[in-house]
Amino acid sequence: MATEKSSNEYEGLLPFCLRWVKPIFAKLPAMAVELATMTTKLAKDDTRRVVHALKVGLAITLVSLFYYFKPLYDGFGTSTMWAVVTVIVVFEFSVGGTLGRGLNRVMATLLAGALGFGAHYLASLGGDTGRPIMLGLFVFVLAAISTFIRFFPKMKARYDYGLLIFILTFCMVSLSGYRDDEIAKLAYSRMLTILIGCCFTVFVCVFVCPVWAGTDLHHLVANNIESLATFFHGFGAEYFGLLQEQGEVGKVDMQKYRTILNSKSNEESLTNLARWEPRHGKFRYRHPWKVYLEIGSLNRECACRLEVLNGYLQTKRTQMPSQQIHGPFQEECMKICSELSNGLRELAMGLRKMVPPLTAKAHIEKAKIAAENLKSHLEEWRFEEMNNNNNALEIVHVASLSPLLLDTICCIVKIVDSVQKLASIAGFKAVEVPSSVAPEQDQGSMQPCHGDVLVAHHVIMIHEEAPC
Amino acid sequence: MATEKSSNEYEGLLPFCLRWVKPIFAKLPAMAVELATMTTKLAKDDTRRVVHALKVGLAITLVSLFYYFKPLYDGFGTSTMWAVVTVIVVFEFSVGGTLGRGLNRVMATLLAGALGFGAHYLASLGGDTGRPIMLGLFVFVLAAISTFIRFFPKMKARYDYGLLIFILTFCMVSLSGYRDDEIAKLAYSRMLTILIGCCFTVFVCVFVCPVWAGTDLHHLVANNIESLATFFHGFGAEYFGLLQEQGEVGKVDMQKYRTILNSKSNEESLTNLARWEPRHGKFRYRHPWKVYLEIGSLNRECACRLEVLNGYLQTKRTQMPSQQIHGPFQEECMKICSELSNGLRELAMGLRKMVPPLTAKAHIEKAKIAAENLKSHLEEWRFEEMNNNNNALEIVHVASLSPLLLDTICCIVKIVDSVQKLASIAGFKAVEVPSSVAPEQDQGSMQPCHGDVLVAHHVIMIHEEAPC
Repeated sequence: MATEKSSNEYEGLLPFCLRWVKPIFAKLPAMAVELATMTTKLAKDDTRRVVHALKVGLAITLVSLFYYFKPLYDGFGTSTMWAVVTVIVVFEFSVGGTLGRGLNRVMATLLAGALGFGAHYLASLGGDTGRPIMLGLFVFVLAAISTFIRFFPKMKARYDYGLLIFILTFCMVSLSGYRDDEIAKLAYSRMLTILIGCCFTVFVCVFVCPVWAGTDLHHLVANNIESLATFFHGFGAEYFGLLQEQGEVGKVDMQKYRTILNSKSNEESLTNLARWEPRHGKFRYRHPWKVYLEIGSLNRECACRLEVLNGYLQTKRTQMPSQQIHGPFQEECMKICSELSNGLRELAMGLRKMVPPLTAKAHIEKAKIAAENLKSHLEEWRFEEMNNNNNALEIVHVASLSPLLLDTICCIVKIVDSVQKLASIAGFKAVEVPSSVAPEQDQGSMQPCHGDVLVAHHVIMIHEEAPC
Repeated sequence: MATEKSSNEYEGLLPFCLRWVKPIFAKLPAMAVELATMTTKLAKDDTRRVVHALKVGLAITLVSLFYYFKPLYDGFGTSTMWAVVTVIVVFEFSVGGTLGRGLNRVMATLLAGALGFGAHYLASLGGDTGRPIMLGLFVFVLAAISTFIRFFPKMKARYDYGLLIFILTFCMVSLSGYRDDEIAKLAYSRMLTILIGCCFTVFVCVFVCPVWAGTDLHHLVANNIESLATFFHGFGAEYFGLLQEQGEVGKVDMQKYRTILNSKSNEESLTNLARWEPRHGKFRYRHPWKVYLEIGSLNRECACRLEVLNGYLQTKRTQMPSQQIHGPFQEECMKICSELSNGLRELAMGLRKMVPPLTAKAHIEKAKIAAENLKSHLEEWRFEEMNNNNNALEIVHVASLSPLLLDTICCIVKIVDSVQKLASIAGFKAVEVPSSVAPEQDQGSMQPCHGDVLVAHHVIMIHEEAPC
């Protein structure tokens, strides 16, 4: 019986394995296809990723020349390794990241090396028994303090890596000194190879297709404003069912604003990286990167309102899909949306091209006037049509839309103000650009734009009229 | 003239330096006070930070014993350094972080070590000329591929550090092999010291006051739900001016929901860390951490609505500060807020104590009924008071509040559903807890709670009535 069972087991082993392995092999082609699709998508979405991978390979290959040429290798010996290690850990996607990490690594190594020497010297005064105790104490205290400092938000944002390298180098120099008498040579060659590694990295990073975190941040914020514009471009038409004939074309783009809601950490890290970067392109050394955080935060506030507006759109679509809204309401709402969309698009374009957004505020102002008109229409209409019970749902809808739109306009005014603040601090210069939005500017506008004086006048009006 | 000038310059050097240094020295006391305040705040906000710093110090001191005892040091020689380096770079704040980094480091070192050996062997077949070329090619290709793989979102979230260590070890083993014939010994002792370092780190991290990322995530999500509850607790009273006599007490707490808006990256990183953690406390090994992300995302959607509600509150406060709202409206609105607040608080408490939130849904259901009542009151009242023009502002306000509250309730229903899903997947068990919210439950409730059957009935109703 037992033999039969074990024989059965033996016979069953192959089928059992096959049963286990088969689905894996069956899945392999699908997995390979998925991997290929994902790789292509990643590479297509941002070709700089491929370039970055090649750049890292190039930098490591360049620095490994130190191994291949005997005269170079003899100079540093096994310390040559630190040059390679430095290239690998310092090379980041953006120039800011690489410079930040490189500077952190060099400064921390210098400081910790010197302190490690000091600790080594002090400990050696303690004699054979006192030496390990004192060294242990130094290491414990410095490691604990540095680790705690890493919790300070400002230090974490910019010097986290430096603090890590500080603990690491201090321990390496002070502890190695306990067993190795050539500690000075060790520290010197480590320092030198780290410097060489940093130089290679920074050279490749800056001179071969550089990726600037500052430029990325700039475009990210401009794109986010553009996404807000896209939402308003579609919202009016979707709400009043004007898009139904054209199908679902506008819908996909409208949801772009959703990425803004979670953009905070990305914007913050890009700002931190951008601050390490030297002058590049149109960006000066002390470009006001912090203002982008302000604009980003207002963008998110606005996107929150858009999220609620989008919710209204869904409700409208399901509860009263084909109901026509009273003519004047529709007209004013469409006008608000088109003015907001044009204003925001102009703002985004101005930011992208680094020219002052002169006419953006006039558009927003027109939207504000239209919103006020909508409010008074609402009042009049309530008394005219009060006997018509069919419009109950309509009044609730438009009445709820009106304060939300007004609130959103207030939020957008703040965005425009922030972008104008950025433009004045960073010194954006007006140029005669043949604006692509220009043909749209007149569409739906009632008054000619009087430029900055009008804009300033309206700003004061807004502050008097509504608490933005 | 020239001499006079240079003499002037010389005389002016000390005052010049003083003028430059003085403000720095003058600022020193203020800076010291600020630093001390910040340190105390950081330590008080989370005492685990201090404990973590001491733990890191302890682990490094423990592992540095390898240097002090000659027999231990002789076993590994200079490779002992890798044990210290491993402790420093692997030790993270949470157990999940430490285990993740440790496993990444060990697995990547093993894999890259083996591949490095292979590359070294293959390159040695190429002869003196071919060897550096082949090695360079291997290093380039592997570094480029690994760097590109770091862009895959799933890899970045969990294996970013492993990929970095993979490139590092591969380069170290294959390149060192070019100059050092004892490559096998090098790889072996590096592997062993890294393992020792990881063991020390994990030991100290897990057994000395462990910080579990999973527990942190669990409490973060529960606290966020509590913040939503706090908002509703204050909103009704603030909106109808009932809090004005009590001063600004409730206001500070109400703004807590704002931190939810930017909680995504924190929740995502905690989820990634929690997935590395073994069974601990009430959390099993395969605790459904991903459901927390779902709840977190719904919390953010809800917080967006709260942001708009908060905007309405500001408008109400400035535009009609002392205007009384029609009685029945106020009653229903207050009821909605109190039910939502109680329901959410119960949900948060259930989540925190890991018991199924049985009655939370009944509260939300009552809020929904009150919102429907508000809507019908609005209709009736419009016809009753249509001749009274003074109420124009009032109707716009309440009419705009009503759909927004309904939308928010829909969002909260989804949160309750997600928490119930979590409770059923994670197997939360009902216990007889003397609930601290219990006395509040009956306050303002009209119908007795019929338990789960009623809840299920209401869920269906909600889906039939409104598109949530």
